[in-house]
Amino acid sequence: MIRAVELIAAKRRGETHRPGEVRALIDAYMRDEVPDYQVSAWLMAVCWRGLSDEETTELTLALADSGRRLRFDGSDRPVVDKHSTGGVGDKTTLVLAPMLVAAGAVVAKMSGRGLGHTGGTIDKLEAIPGVTTTTDADALVAAVRRDGIAVAAQSPDLAPADGRLYALRDVTATVESIPLIASSVMSKKIATGANAVVLDVKAGSGAFMKEADAARDLARAMVALGRGTGLPTVAVISSMDAPLGRTIGNALEVREAIETLRGGGPAELAALCVALGAEVLTAAGAGPQDAASERLRRTLADGCALGVLRRLVGAMGGDVRCIDEPDRLPRAARVVEVKADRAGYVAAIDALRCGEVAMRLGAGRATKRDAIDPAVGLVLRVSRGDSVRQSDPLVDVHCQEEPSVDLLDALRAAFSIHERAPAPAPLILDVIR
Amino acid sequence: MIRAVELIAAKRRGETHRPGEVRALIDAYMRDEVPDYQVSAWLMAVCWRGLSDEETTELTLALADSGRRLRFDGSDRPVVDKHSTGGVGDKTTLVLAPMLVAAGAVVAKMSGRGLGHTGGTIDKLEAIPGVTTTTDADALVAAVRRDGIAVAAQSPDLAPADGRLYALRDVTATVESIPLIASSVMSKKIATGANAVVLDVKAGSGAFMKEADAARDLARAMVALGRGTGLPTVAVISSMDAPLGRTIGNALEVREAIETLRGGGPAELAALCVALGAEVLTAAGAGPQDAASERLRRTLADGCALGVLRRLVGAMGGDVRCIDEPDRLPRAARVVEVKADRAGYVAAIDALRCGEVAMRLGAGRATKRDAIDPAVGLVLRVSRGDSVRQSDPLVDVHCQEEPSVDLLDALRAAFSIHERAPAPAPLILDVIR
Repeated sequence: MIRAVELIAAKRRGETHRPGEVRALIDAYMRDEVPDYQVSAWLMAVCWRGLSDEETTELTLALADSGRRLRFDGSDRPVVDKHSTGGVGDKTTLVLAPMLVAAGAVVAKMSGRGLGHTGGTIDKLEAIPGVTTTTDADALVAAVRRDGIAVAAQSPDLAPADGRLYALRDVTATVESIPLIASSVMSKKIATGANAVVLDVKAGSGAFMKEADAARDLARAMVALGRGTGLPTVAVISSMDAPLGRTIGNALEVREAIETLRGGGPAELAALCVALGAEVLTAAGAGPQDAASERLRRTLADGCALGVLRRLVGAMGGDVRCIDEPDRLPRAARVVEVKADRAGYVAAIDALRCGEVAMRLGAGRATKRDAIDPAVGLVLRVSRGDSVRQSDPLVDVHCQEEPSVDLLDALRAAFSIHERAPAPAPLILDVIR
Repeated sequence: MIRAVELIAAKRRGETHRPGEVRALIDAYMRDEVPDYQVSAWLMAVCWRGLSDEETTELTLALADSGRRLRFDGSDRPVVDKHSTGGVGDKTTLVLAPMLVAAGAVVAKMSGRGLGHTGGTIDKLEAIPGVTTTTDADALVAAVRRDGIAVAAQSPDLAPADGRLYALRDVTATVESIPLIASSVMSKKIATGANAVVLDVKAGSGAFMKEADAARDLARAMVALGRGTGLPTVAVISSMDAPLGRTIGNALEVREAIETLRGGGPAELAALCVALGAEVLTAAGAGPQDAASERLRRTLADGCALGVLRRLVGAMGGDVRCIDEPDRLPRAARVVEVKADRAGYVAAIDALRCGEVAMRLGAGRATKRDAIDPAVGLVLRVSRGDSVRQSDPLVDVHCQEEPSVDLLDALRAAFSIHERAPAPAPLILDVIR
């Protein structure tokens, strides 16, 4: 019988748990032998004192082992996965997952829904008419075996201890902790049977981590955890000072993803997908980085990646005609242009402000119970570094009702227009392997 | 509706709560609107970040206001109270409370039971045949009005929020926190209607605070809290490196208390009681310190204090003949002498080791559910600084069965015998007013 109060006291004093103790705590929690109030006190002590690499590894494996662990044996294709720490306009998964499958990998992905100013892949897919998302692990496995790709919402069969722990962290202000974040993410990757993982750790105003140094700390912890748990992991640190691409809002982002899979779309979005994809293919042992990048680029040029998206949407019950006729996607009742109030260079487009405005329009959720409107959102008409004249359009607001003056002011404030052109800012800030 | 998660997050970040927020949290907790798991996370964040003086005052008053607040109006005698942070052989309350009443004050006291190596006043009183302890606030008030003194166990009517919070702290490793300790103690003093309080903050091996500096920090926090809540409070820091007096064990300590009230007993015990009593009487406005000390000493010389103890024991249903014939108190089946294994000076008598041995004999509780044996314990035959020859008796073990070699070895190890006489060590280390 585990003495939870002694584990809490030890962590409170800053001590390291003995091997097996963290797993025993999680296991006892899942058997209802340790109550929520002891686990929440332990979680706060972890936020205070941290976890060692060994403790974090043990926690991650205990979370992964709390439910089924999927296996996709019998295929010579690597099972790869990608995780983003969350951003504004981040439709990377919609583009990258089909590219990876078209390039010869398998993608079995559990994705989340959006909250606050950041979006979620499930919400974006569900913007396509007819799409429904499963939470069933067997259905995920069957779809992956059939199509090479599947996206499911968090399944209660996979890493259930993570689901329970996360729900407790959410209401006890213990979410923000590098070892807790890292173990939560990686436990799900392990449970879904990934052979290699690439993490897109966002840094900047629209990201969970505002500072690149904090993002680097999280990235290093996740890569070390990948090493500790035997799951090859690479982290790419990418800028989230400005929204990614030109669209924010679920159907609008699907449209942009389709454009990108057709070889169009914003160059930075395609470049980020190629970089992330090449990292994870290489980590999975699928050849050198240059060849992987080349293979990934080809999946855009030859339409293979778009074909995989069509297959995924069809498998999820969606209207595949949307892929070739994006006007079939939900569209907002009106589009309101926001114009520059003076001439100059676009020095910054604040991702957080843009994400918050999109949320207020209905593209995101202020609380978990909120419904979202797939049609609404923002389409940027300028990028950072562009020169604008007074009254040039900056951004289109796709909305159902006339937006308030307050909302338009908040949106205008997201754009900094300066006299001088800003220095170029790279999208990819660092890669931690 | 209070957003508990926001309060936890703010405290986690090290912020100070706004006025009213701590009270709102406690009130919501008592209405079951905030669950244990949020309060335990908040408590751990408090252990980490601390509470400001204002927050601690608000917490204390919220705990006191969670139940009845007793009033003893209509008497010109001050209601005084005393609290010890817990020690080994600490029978101070049994001596001091009657002295204070004999000196013209009123004592309405809630006391605890012992746990671990420290004892509790309730257990000591219950060592007297027939004594039963009430937890009823009305009975406490009636007894105080009639006798000027009453001792009750923690009543569910008084500061119930403190009882609930303490139970949660006990199982979540959040006991050790100066603002939480201070608010817990002072809330009960406020609820029982005290006009002035003296705190006996023990420092040393047998105390909760091993270091005098830590004891001073707690003492300062409690005195400041007394100021903040309008309850005059003085703290005396006294040494708990060695047991207090010569006895450890419930009936043995009652016997020593009676001896002291007769004007005998260890000089240091009487001196500590006079010092504590003079501080609290002066704090209550009952004249200058010297006069108060003199009045207190007289209560020992003239037998008045012993008379008050007799009244208290009678009111609690106890056999008052024990006061004059202490052999009527429970006695252990056998007494085993532990002898010095060499000659020298008694340089130290470790209070913690003595307390642990007494607990193993059955004088104390290892866990809250354990029963105690009132008869067993230790009687020291030497004091610190005494010179001993080889085979001189050091301590008598009052026990029901032959003690184990292991226990006797542990007890012998409590005595440090050196070639040179130790420097004198004061019992009272500091007074914080």
